[in-house]
Amino acid sequence: MALKIDQFMDEAINQATKSFSEDGIPIGSVLVRAGQIIGRGHNRRVQHGDPTAHGEIDCLRNAGRQASYKDTVIYSTLMPCAMCAGAVVQFGIAKVIAGENRTFKSSAQFMRDNGVEVVDLDLDQCFELLQQFQIKFPKVWNEDIGVE
Amino acid sequence: MALKIDQFMDEAINQATKSFSEDGIPIGSVLVRAGQIIGRGHNRRVQHGDPTAHGEIDCLRNAGRQASYKDTVIYSTLMPCAMCAGAVVQFGIAKVIAGENRTFKSSAQFMRDNGVEVVDLDLDQCFELLQQFQIKFPKVWNEDIGVE
Repeated sequence: MALKIDQFMDEAINQATKSFSEDGIPIGSVLVRAGQIIGRGHNRRVQHGDPTAHGEIDCLRNAGRQASYKDTVIYSTLMPCAMCAGAVVQFGIAKVIAGENRTFKSSAQFMRDNGVEVVDLDLDQCFELLQQFQIKFPKVWNEDIGVE
Repeated sequence: MALKIDQFMDEAINQATKSFSEDGIPIGSVLVRAGQIIGRGHNRRVQHGDPTAHGEIDCLRNAGRQASYKDTVIYSTLMPCAMCAGAVVQFGIAKVIAGENRTFKSSAQFMRDNGVEVVDLDLDQCFELLQQFQIKFPKVWNEDIGVE
């Protein structure tokens, strides 16, 4: 049984879908505090020519400066990579809820080892969106994950 | 004996000094390939209200999309934090040359464990620049390193 898609993962998926509609990498993210979205974003490597603009980084950038992240949850349609997992640990974000962990060898264990609660919803919808992108733009995907 | 400051660390220090002149966090970074600077940047948390704009992230953003990083060296006036070390590992950057590793508990070992060559120049100049910033703007510094 698939775990439930709540309003926050739904918005992360909306962000991913928006990116795909711009021929960008379909990964979206939202940052939540006390039941409110305080930031949202999506991968913008293609749109802004920015290799650091992964979904989570774009989301954290859009949320702006925060005094603390210990009461925040970050949602991402894909389990964070090493850079984004590093941001989660560095910023002290309490919890990560990921859409899936199948597409890419992620840093779930690194985050858990550093005290972050990590949930994998294992959603076909998120996985299939990235499958479609990889078929359409294989070189861009390989660039994003550092494969030559 | 202090290790030599080459032209690349010199430019990273210039970037850090430029940031301080803007009341920003004085950490600078340059990305080098084949003896040429292909990107430079500095922390812009204060200047852009962007918590993800650490020196190394700003530098990688400014360098733009690269097919590969395996022939690149990143210089930073401070040993990379978890986010920036994650970016180094994720992007496959071959080598990190840091100005110092005293100010902040960094992620040097994480990078070494992931096959990155890491050099610490242990420069008083880089350490003292951050000491000055911490005295002038202690709250901003604590925000940047996630201390409340």
